[in-house]
Amino acid sequence: MALISPSRRLRRTPFSEGVEAAGVSAYTVYNHMLLPTVFASVEEDYRHLKAAVQVWDVACERQVEVRGPDAGKLVQMLSPRDLRGMLPGQCYYLPMVDETGGMLNDPVAVKLAEDRWWISIADSDLILWVKGIAHGYRLDVLIDEPDVSPLAVQGPLADDLMARVFGEGVRGIRFFRFGHFDFMGRDMVIARSGYSKQGGFEIYVEGSDIGMPLWNALMEAGRDLDVRAGCPNGIERVEGGLLSYGNDMTRDNTPHEAGLGRFCNTATAIGCIGRDALLRVVKDGPVKQVRAIEIETDRLPRCDRVWPILDGTRRVGQVTSAAVSPDFGCGVAIGMVRMTHWDPGTEVMVETQDGAFPARVRENFWN
Amino acid sequence: MALISPSRRLRRTPFSEGVEAAGVSAYTVYNHMLLPTVFASVEEDYRHLKAAVQVWDVACERQVEVRGPDAGKLVQMLSPRDLRGMLPGQCYYLPMVDETGGMLNDPVAVKLAEDRWWISIADSDLILWVKGIAHGYRLDVLIDEPDVSPLAVQGPLADDLMARVFGEGVRGIRFFRFGHFDFMGRDMVIARSGYSKQGGFEIYVEGSDIGMPLWNALMEAGRDLDVRAGCPNGIERVEGGLLSYGNDMTRDNTPHEAGLGRFCNTATAIGCIGRDALLRVVKDGPVKQVRAIEIETDRLPRCDRVWPILDGTRRVGQVTSAAVSPDFGCGVAIGMVRMTHWDPGTEVMVETQDGAFPARVRENFWN
Repeated sequence: MALISPSRRLRRTPFSEGVEAAGVSAYTVYNHMLLPTVFASVEEDYRHLKAAVQVWDVACERQVEVRGPDAGKLVQMLSPRDLRGMLPGQCYYLPMVDETGGMLNDPVAVKLAEDRWWISIADSDLILWVKGIAHGYRLDVLIDEPDVSPLAVQGPLADDLMARVFGEGVRGIRFFRFGHFDFMGRDMVIARSGYSKQGGFEIYVEGSDIGMPLWNALMEAGRDLDVRAGCPNGIERVEGGLLSYGNDMTRDNTPHEAGLGRFCNTATAIGCIGRDALLRVVKDGPVKQVRAIEIETDRLPRCDRVWPILDGTRRVGQVTSAAVSPDFGCGVAIGMVRMTHWDPGTEVMVETQDGAFPARVRENFWN
Repeated sequence: MALISPSRRLRRTPFSEGVEAAGVSAYTVYNHMLLPTVFASVEEDYRHLKAAVQVWDVACERQVEVRGPDAGKLVQMLSPRDLRGMLPGQCYYLPMVDETGGMLNDPVAVKLAEDRWWISIADSDLILWVKGIAHGYRLDVLIDEPDVSPLAVQGPLADDLMARVFGEGVRGIRFFRFGHFDFMGRDMVIARSGYSKQGGFEIYVEGSDIGMPLWNALMEAGRDLDVRAGCPNGIERVEGGLLSYGNDMTRDNTPHEAGLGRFCNTATAIGCIGRDALLRVVKDGPVKQVRAIEIETDRLPRCDRVWPILDGTRRVGQVTSAAVSPDFGCGVAIGMVRMTHWDPGTEVMVETQDGAFPARVRENFWN
């Protein structure tokens, strides 16, 4: 295992001080920013996440703020999801595609007002695409990365912890809705969302200066709940089938290949730049698609490259994220499988840098 | 020091196998790809780079290939450097700016033919901007990231090593020119360029499969030259004043603030998207600019955040890259300084996470 070399380019966050004090042991880099990946150990973090409550520095979910009279028009140009019914106060998971239907990002868009959106992005400089389109089409919008840093509170005790800091009202926030709450006289957008299946919230912390006071308040308030610093967990998110842009799908893939067809309304998403290309995909369907893959093993190397999925010597897909699950006693994986082999129960082999393992395509992820 | 968590999203390169076998000890992430930062130690790597020859995995300098009848027009839209005189066979260092004149990247553009360019990028997803502009303006171009991975050969013995592998002809390549050379029947574009001041080449390796054969051939041929795996060196590049996008300048800065005015011909760069904004900057000049800063110390913490430059309590700039130089016996730094304090010899203080150090603005970098 190699170290990570710090530099200004790998940006620290408003919560870095807390993360370091909590004993972070590994990072990844996400949107040119540090994202913690391990505190105690991946396994110990995993058990704690499923049992208690964690505070996650996910400032790396940077925001692209789109503001102005053409804001709604522009956001619709970016995605094949029909946004006509979306109301201020809603969050939508939006596949974003280029003119060929290739995925550029899979953000959560927060509609603050008719003319003001935050696009909470996965790992690509989506702002460059948004600015290029806005400029090329001469749209009347302002586009910027504001000083907004999400802090997630995840785990079965998340509601209890949040209620102690923000009041009982937070319990009423519905899934993928948000509300405005006060912390030390500052307005915070709080959504019921997050990159785990354990439930919880994401707080859009506006203003770096309030980052550590909020971090400390959550840690203080949750002491008897065993609150800890945590991070998206490499086992739990695969069990839950939470995709990772750059890992499980890239610009090579359509949303349909990524299994995100339910978030596309290609026929009615008038204005979407990738619409023409995707209408074709909708008609024929994808020839490969994301699937849950169960690997028969209790030991796997790090999934740091694509692992071919084989039927004999024939390559029928690839695994892109994998881990050994303590709870399910097998290797859990996300892969993209050709239609000839994507039916549940299909037996395949997965070839890793440490040898091949027998595996099986599953109907669903593990929860 | 924390570890880096491997995942497919932090892409391996065609040379990763060689890098690992050579005992890499730290990485950074650059264009969603692993970039080695340390082998033996930063100091030992530095001494060796200045004395012998190193082979660097800089595959993370990804290429944006622009091809088609509108290719030249599009590249000119991206940069305030006048490209009318640029010939096929030339490499140009090109500041790239948005509509406000803010820097989006500082690539080296390789003009392969009138209608075919490789833009060898620094750390931002420039392809998204290029695609957005091309789409918005309906330009007749193809834009893609080809399977091309630069491998650098740097150090005083670089010419000798390269001549052994590619023939004596490589010695004739002039600075920022390139030629085509054969390796095992494969065509390689080789430029005299690289991210050090020790001299050398960058080989644009087309096709991942030929990566390790070339790596091994260079290591084999250079055994008696003490060739080693190396990487851009955090001390040497600051001594030489080689800027790093994301560290020393960002989208907040104009090329003029970054001291790159000599690469801008804003008046005649007709078509450049940021031209209107930059004409204003050219007229008034920037109010702050990149400078070499000498820090009086033999010990510095990691420059993982901006360090304020102070005159008393007044903030007059910031240091963005710094290291202690064994050869010059002081702290060497790159900073951005306000015009009131940018004259050579100006005494200031630099405030780090480990306290403040006296420092002085210099006329030039250290070589």
